Amino acid sequence: MTSRAAARLAAGAPVIATAHFEAEADPFHPVDNPSGHVNLGTAENRLLEDVLQPLLTARRTPVDTRYGLPHGTAPLRAAVARLLGGTWHAPVDPDDLVITAGATAALDIAATVTCDPGDVIVVPAPYYSAFAGDLTDRSGARLAPAPMSPDTGFALDVDVIDRTVRELRRQGETVRAVALSSPANPHGAVYPAPVLRDLLRVAAEHDLDVISDEIHAHCAFGPEPFVSVLDPAVLGPHADRVHVIWGFAKDFGLSGLKVGVLRPARPTRDAARALAYFATVSTDTQALLCDLLSDGERVSALLAENGRRLGGSHAHASALLTAHGIRHVPASAGLSIWLDLRDRLDEPTFAAEDRLWRRTRAARVNVLPGSAFGAPGPGWFRLCHAVPADLVTTGIDRLATATAPSRSTP
Amino acid sequence: MTSRAAARLAAGAPVIATAHFEAEADPFHPVDNPSGHVNLGTAENRLLEDVLQPLLTARRTPVDTRYGLPHGTAPLRAAVARLLGGTWHAPVDPDDLVITAGATAALDIAATVTCDPGDVIVVPAPYYSAFAGDLTDRSGARLAPAPMSPDTGFALDVDVIDRTVRELRRQGETVRAVALSSPANPHGAVYPAPVLRDLLRVAAEHDLDVISDEIHAHCAFGPEPFVSVLDPAVLGPHADRVHVIWGFAKDFGLSGLKVGVLRPARPTRDAARALAYFATVSTDTQALLCDLLSDGERVSALLAENGRRLGGSHAHASALLTAHGIRHVPASAGLSIWLDLRDRLDEPTFAAEDRLWRRTRAARVNVLPGSAFGAPGPGWFRLCHAVPADLVTTGIDRLATATAPSRSTP
Repeated sequence: MTSRAAARLAAGAPVIATAHFEAEADPFHPVDNPSGHVNLGTAENRLLEDVLQPLLTARRTPVDTRYGLPHGTAPLRAAVARLLGGTWHAPVDPDDLVITAGATAALDIAATVTCDPGDVIVVPAPYYSAFAGDLTDRSGARLAPAPMSPDTGFALDVDVIDRTVRELRRQGETVRAVALSSPANPHGAVYPAPVLRDLLRVAAEHDLDVISDEIHAHCAFGPEPFVSVLDPAVLGPHADRVHVIWGFAKDFGLSGLKVGVLRPARPTRDAARALAYFATVSTDTQALLCDLLSDGERVSALLAENGRRLGGSHAHASALLTAHGIRHVPASAGLSIWLDLRDRLDEPTFAAEDRLWRRTRAARVNVLPGSAFGAPGPGWFRLCHAVPADLVTTGIDRLATATAPSRSTP
Repeated sequence: MTSRAAARLAAGAPVIATAHFEAEADPFHPVDNPSGHVNLGTAENRLLEDVLQPLLTARRTPVDTRYGLPHGTAPLRAAVARLLGGTWHAPVDPDDLVITAGATAALDIAATVTCDPGDVIVVPAPYYSAFAGDLTDRSGARLAPAPMSPDTGFALDVDVIDRTVRELRRQGETVRAVALSSPANPHGAVYPAPVLRDLLRVAAEHDLDVISDEIHAHCAFGPEPFVSVLDPAVLGPHADRVHVIWGFAKDFGLSGLKVGVLRPARPTRDAARALAYFATVSTDTQALLCDLLSDGERVSALLAENGRRLGGSHAHASALLTAHGIRHVPASAGLSIWLDLRDRLDEPTFAAEDRLWRRTRAARVNVLPGSAFGAPGPGWFRLCHAVPADLVTTGIDRLATATAPSRSTP
């Protein structure tokens, strides 16, 4: 027999993953496989591989194959605490950190310790598409989008959060949290401290927790520096209501290691640790990361280089898009650009967006449609550029051709 | 705010883990720390570390830090399928395997895809103590023990399973599965094929799935060979109702890597894959295991050596126990011996068992009380012997002294 959960889960394979593995199964190569897929759909940072190669040299030892604490070895939590202390501009107690098998597990744990099944998490939309599964599949929580405006580049408008919560409560919903990506995914905005302060204030007024996915903390390349909700310039009296997620996938380009970090709100820490049993990271991989983090200067240089390369990659992609007449929201952080293809839809509907998406995939370029990100209206797509520049060039060329308004259609 | 799940999870830290980390924080050393803890409570196989040292040499590469399939990389699933094909005496399709962050996650997934919250899983008792959390914490299922008899060394009696299911249903419970450790944990029995066939037959008669935790498959050292429920000599027409768990912790002594394997019943495979997103293993660790498994002869030699060393370790511990007059159930597999200290309780109650446990911990030796294993009556303890022999000797000496019936107490 299969449980109700099994039936629900089997039905909903994440579109983002399906498209990723489809593209990765037959990858483009200019000489060997020119008709292969160009995958600009997956937010994987492949810009650091040459930098990482000489750094992944930690020797393996049987001692690192023994059981570690399920919520992370003491050495790794200490090393991450040092790193994130710099990021958050505040001392970090390693005992406040929970290491998890990827940010997916960290998001799930944050949602599970905050929400009972049926409770609602408000998310500014567009939102990171995997929120739809990560925050709900296991916790039983539901997402409610708070639609931001294309006219402001989807800037975070706290009044919209406020109105959305009030409206949901008027309808009898139990709203428990606000979750956001900061910096924003898909559109790459860096949120200024005053906006985040306002968000925490409004959340507190509504007795809500805030789940801040800061996995792109060191992926900012614009003039505005990244600020965490845990930064003293933001946090105020809300430490017990804030859950922060971080990980090694984006800032260090180590997505396959599946190492996430959760700083749960204190009242939920013991429960978060208990849930970490189900998502424990290999001690061998934890030892590798300890070794990588052991040299503070090397880490600073790596993270600075990451920002430089992402900035360069974004500038390259943005210039190409402009040259092809493809409108987009300029990003200040992250691995992706949010494309405005509304003028290339044959009608202003999500069905038309889906048709356009099929055309791009037929042209062997993978970008993801806005519907997967809860975009407030149709015609938006996310393009990830953190791959070698020639791949970005080929992909954008294909995208421009595939989406060019056809003048011959009646 | 914290969810109901968080409140429940925070309240129930597993006793087995608490005792483990308490003991590991101050470990015994004959010279450096003679008053430290001797940890014979944790089922960790430390007998292979010298054999593993020269084998853990796989080079790390950035390619192995890219995203892999969440349910396991194709190369690792292929390598594990080859290995388990030999174990199960039947060809294994790598697509039927799900790699998870430890057997804990594999057990959780099996329970979650089988049971709705509130449903019941019947377990022959005594059972693996972590079943109590692994099979229930996230799935919402509940365990119901089917008590086996001390008079037969807790041999699996399928009639007791049958009666337990009937009684639970009479009480209105929704019973969905039977779960067992095979070989048995804590008492190290190897189940013969006819008994397992009977179990599958009875489960089928009651429309139940069977969850078989075979993590000790290659830890058998007695005359009886291990037989999987997936072995053609057992399985019969029940392939769609059987979930098998395996992992690298016991058979390879690689507990810290937290790599579990689930062969879910086919109808639940897609759901199991979806849940594997929340428990994905580091690609770097998966590449290490691919390298380790690449030489079939080396693997066979390693597994044979594991059986020999566990057999030797068991014989050493058993002889010492006998010399000290400590009764126990002889094991044929696994890392532990099930001690019968009923004659050392000051009264036949679980309260007395707990008092005796406190005396052993005060004597700086960690063994776990039967209450944690759902033992049908008080006075049983699990002693793990898969550590260096001098540690076993010191631990059993301490245990004998600490539990010796005190003749001076009035």
